[in-house]
Amino acid sequence: MDAPPRVRRVLVTGATGFIGRHCLNALLMRDIELHAVAQSIPKGPLGRTAWRACDLRDPQSTERLVADLRPSHILHCAWMATPGRFWTDLENLQWLYSGLAMLSAFRKHGGERFTGAGTCAEYISDADKFIEEQTPISPATLYGKSKAALWTAAQAFASDGGPSVSWGRIFMPYGPGDNPQRLIPTIIAALKEGRPVLLTAGNQERDFVHVKDVADLLVKLLFSEHTGAFNVGAGRPTSIRYVAEYLAGKLASPKLLNFGARPMPTNEPLKLVADTERVTRIIGWAPSVTLEPGLDALIENE
Amino acid sequence: MDAPPRVRRVLVTGATGFIGRHCLNALLMRDIELHAVAQSIPKGPLGRTAWRACDLRDPQSTERLVADLRPSHILHCAWMATPGRFWTDLENLQWLYSGLAMLSAFRKHGGERFTGAGTCAEYISDADKFIEEQTPISPATLYGKSKAALWTAAQAFASDGGPSVSWGRIFMPYGPGDNPQRLIPTIIAALKEGRPVLLTAGNQERDFVHVKDVADLLVKLLFSEHTGAFNVGAGRPTSIRYVAEYLAGKLASPKLLNFGARPMPTNEPLKLVADTERVTRIIGWAPSVTLEPGLDALIENE
Repeated sequence: MDAPPRVRRVLVTGATGFIGRHCLNALLMRDIELHAVAQSIPKGPLGRTAWRACDLRDPQSTERLVADLRPSHILHCAWMATPGRFWTDLENLQWLYSGLAMLSAFRKHGGERFTGAGTCAEYISDADKFIEEQTPISPATLYGKSKAALWTAAQAFASDGGPSVSWGRIFMPYGPGDNPQRLIPTIIAALKEGRPVLLTAGNQERDFVHVKDVADLLVKLLFSEHTGAFNVGAGRPTSIRYVAEYLAGKLASPKLLNFGARPMPTNEPLKLVADTERVTRIIGWAPSVTLEPGLDALIENE
Repeated sequence: MDAPPRVRRVLVTGATGFIGRHCLNALLMRDIELHAVAQSIPKGPLGRTAWRACDLRDPQSTERLVADLRPSHILHCAWMATPGRFWTDLENLQWLYSGLAMLSAFRKHGGERFTGAGTCAEYISDADKFIEEQTPISPATLYGKSKAALWTAAQAFASDGGPSVSWGRIFMPYGPGDNPQRLIPTIIAALKEGRPVLLTAGNQERDFVHVKDVADLLVKLLFSEHTGAFNVGAGRPTSIRYVAEYLAGKLASPKLLNFGARPMPTNEPLKLVADTERVTRIIGWAPSVTLEPGLDALIENE
């Protein structure tokens, strides 16, 4: 008789976060042993996920967790994400350092596959196109630098018998469960309450990608054999003005939008849109949620 | 009365290694408080250098060392360098991980300036020119990946009040104190003993740079305010065949050279020569030892 195939033991970090939670949902339907880690375990029924509380900012706790659990797969979504602060907060360095501790322990204990949540902020910000293996990695922010450093390190830990590694460079995720201080939830809340919305000129083009699509792609990457970095974006350039006007149109409150009331932040890139050729060709992935219906659903449910 | 200027407390790692030892010599003439760390302390008179034994492959020992000593400057030369093994040895990952521990502790304890010994192997290997801020960083080897990851991380640790950081990408160092298993000492020893020298075709072009020049530039970088990566090379393309023939000519034994006796290693880049424009312009440095007299001195003393 053949031995039964080895069960995949998947560890999802940041599993109570915006993206991690959706990844967990996407993983629940898979035939795997599912483990989730967060700073504190959520209340309520936990279903078939085995939860652990661990402060992954601490390298030694991180090493112990990986040594105890010996996952075959890690989907590393944990990072600091407090709006307004995450770009420059020194906590980024703790996430970088403990990310290395995780990779080191994962390799040591026979880990097979690591997929990490990266960011479009790893790229040089004034590029015309953001192509995984061509656009220079030259992050302007501490957040981007720390993520880029972890990915560079992951590739080293992958060498010669180490885990296979992949990395999703996430563009502008939106959707249910987002932090209320981020752009789209802020606009929707103000419009619903009839408050004016103070905006920049709004002509920055961004690549809005629904968080369910983000989770779907990250999980695909986790179970794929393909290594390297992949853009996680819809590939559609959309101005912030367009999104605000769309939301205001749906909520019949266009007069509340006050474009130009806030200065454009210095060093804000004008265009940040994923080139999706590589992810389409290699992973065979395309986003399933179009922006407008995605926004409609948010308006109804937020 | 003015407060006396703060004394610079310099920590040199890898201080018994080929490059570290020459850096230590270059630092002895400076008005600084000089500390050196190595796996074991050398025997004999130690002069004005304060030595410590520490295994820097261990992250916790590394953190303790930096916390105890609180250096203002670190010149990080330590790394595994065993010829033939260092390209792929998994010990590279320990050096990467503990390098992060060093940077984290250095930042935490108010470190001012970090200069690290990087490598030309961080660059994509088939480039025509090796220019610090243009040539893609795409290392083929675990050694190159680990060094590149440490430099990416160093730039993150430098952000927002962290230490100022610089990095020397060293090309082909040679000179007194080299490991006898490296190319030039091997050729000299064989020629002196009248043994045949088995070589590849020898048409690879390399950038040989005297170890005293390497040390001089690394120390200059350490005390400079300029940040970023700098090539450490002479900028002169020299084939391995030329070096072997020069040495054989001096030792009157050209018939001992057997070119083509060994296959060219796969993936061996044909040309690895530093572009020196940036280091000349910004640091005002140029090598002082020309290859031929540098080789003459080696022949006399080895």
